[in-house]
Amino acid sequence: MSLLVVGSVALDSVETPTDKRDNVLGGSAVFFSYAASYFTDVRLVGVVGEDWPSEHTELLKKQKIDVSGLQVIPGAKTFRWRGKYQPNMNDRETLEIHLNVFEKFDPQIPASYQDCQFLFLANGTPTLQMHVLEQLPNAKLVVADTMDLWINIQNDELKALMKRLDGLVLNDSEAKLLTGDENLVRAGHKVREMGPKFVVIKKGEHGAMFFSKDETYVMPAYPTPDVIDPTGAGDSFAGGMMGYLASKKEATPQTLKEALAYGTIVASYNVEDFSLERMKQIGRPELESRMKDYRRMLSF
Amino acid sequence: MSLLVVGSVALDSVETPTDKRDNVLGGSAVFFSYAASYFTDVRLVGVVGEDWPSEHTELLKKQKIDVSGLQVIPGAKTFRWRGKYQPNMNDRETLEIHLNVFEKFDPQIPASYQDCQFLFLANGTPTLQMHVLEQLPNAKLVVADTMDLWINIQNDELKALMKRLDGLVLNDSEAKLLTGDENLVRAGHKVREMGPKFVVIKKGEHGAMFFSKDETYVMPAYPTPDVIDPTGAGDSFAGGMMGYLASKKEATPQTLKEALAYGTIVASYNVEDFSLERMKQIGRPELESRMKDYRRMLSF
Repeated sequence: MSLLVVGSVALDSVETPTDKRDNVLGGSAVFFSYAASYFTDVRLVGVVGEDWPSEHTELLKKQKIDVSGLQVIPGAKTFRWRGKYQPNMNDRETLEIHLNVFEKFDPQIPASYQDCQFLFLANGTPTLQMHVLEQLPNAKLVVADTMDLWINIQNDELKALMKRLDGLVLNDSEAKLLTGDENLVRAGHKVREMGPKFVVIKKGEHGAMFFSKDETYVMPAYPTPDVIDPTGAGDSFAGGMMGYLASKKEATPQTLKEALAYGTIVASYNVEDFSLERMKQIGRPELESRMKDYRRMLSF
Repeated sequence: MSLLVVGSVALDSVETPTDKRDNVLGGSAVFFSYAASYFTDVRLVGVVGEDWPSEHTELLKKQKIDVSGLQVIPGAKTFRWRGKYQPNMNDRETLEIHLNVFEKFDPQIPASYQDCQFLFLANGTPTLQMHVLEQLPNAKLVVADTMDLWINIQNDELKALMKRLDGLVLNDSEAKLLTGDENLVRAGHKVREMGPKFVVIKKGEHGAMFFSKDETYVMPAYPTPDVIDPTGAGDSFAGGMMGYLASKKEATPQTLKEALAYGTIVASYNVEDFSLERMKQIGRPELESRMKDYRRMLSF
């Protein structure tokens, strides 16, 4: 079943303690759609400037991602982000951010996308996310991401959006900020009580937690020793999760748990190189192989 | 099969963001032995002063913990620790520490303990831990804990000890300090290459990681919303783990993994109140009930 993602498309410059890359392919909708494409058809809505290398579009098309919703704005520049990771590879500092075309991004959902039943609202203001949601009244499962900035400056808009979501995905620090509760188990349920039917708290190298009315559980991250660049880990996690759910055509307690596990596995590959380099090297067989190992790891 | 623990016996004063307790029962060997006592016979070696309330000894005896190795030093005071937890309940500050009788602790293993085959060397200097180990040449499984202080000031002694251990249990920050590696997966294996056959890295609210030559896995913490006081969580984890191993009479890959799960469950109860208050309220049925839930949580 087709999955639609609306979010940022970017050129990232990343510094890690041992290496760096400049102006490589990035953005929440890019990591998400590539990760989801292992499982299902994906349609992308985003915006870039005329500096956007066409090879990036070709890469997404090659993965059968429908990019007819990718607007190219003449005479303008693509969203750029520059960040630096601390030695722990978990904390990062934003060195530069140029929103460029993303600042006035007004997502228009192509008519050909109207039948999408699975919708992911990636990085963007809650106002923009609501605007997208309203263009897709037939969506069956709507999940959004959010970030500390919107919790701080668009809190009312975020809370209004949350009442209309099936699921919300956010970081541990964001869940604490949103609820004022330092205990993640309590924070997860408090977020859920704000509207979403389920909440996923991403804990980076420590995995993810799931909260619904009837369930609370934790999925550890897959323990890879090769963490090269964590950029996009949260988006590739969400992409794997939503891609798997769309492939199963429904979100039941069972498919949701499997989806979180697939998201975990895709993210574990994503962090093993810069940009989409590692994800480009793998396919469903590599995901299934690591999933088998992950299942064995959690069995006793 | 009988299990012996040698470590600190203390009176703790604990402040959390919402509550506090003064001079309550604590110490690594106390948390460890109580946690292990759900599974097997436990013998304790430690030292206290004449200020030690006899009710604490009675509590341990009631749990069938053999305290004939608990020395009482006349005219001296028991080890006291005062600490304060940050709002995240993971980071803590030591406000006061009075080693008192623990400073010159010279553990003597009673003849009646010589047949112990499972040995846990809890908090203490590597020199002291080695001294104990040498008094028990027949021990079949020797596991130790360590801490940042010994990594810093008794590094050579710790490394000599590590070559003689079956297992080492340590915190995530300690594993990073010991190896200089910020990636916990690599750090875990580097610690293992220093000697122990297996290594367990404790990550507090994020669970624990296991490393042997053939295996690497992660066990998330049980997601309890009721974290009242994390003091002793690491020791009760180790106690549950070693107690279960002793009850199974051998450490195989399978019993080790089950042991880590039991350690996780015992620790999840321990943090639900100050001192041993919560552990005192439960028995094997409560552990099995939560274990069932934990297994279900990790199954998909």
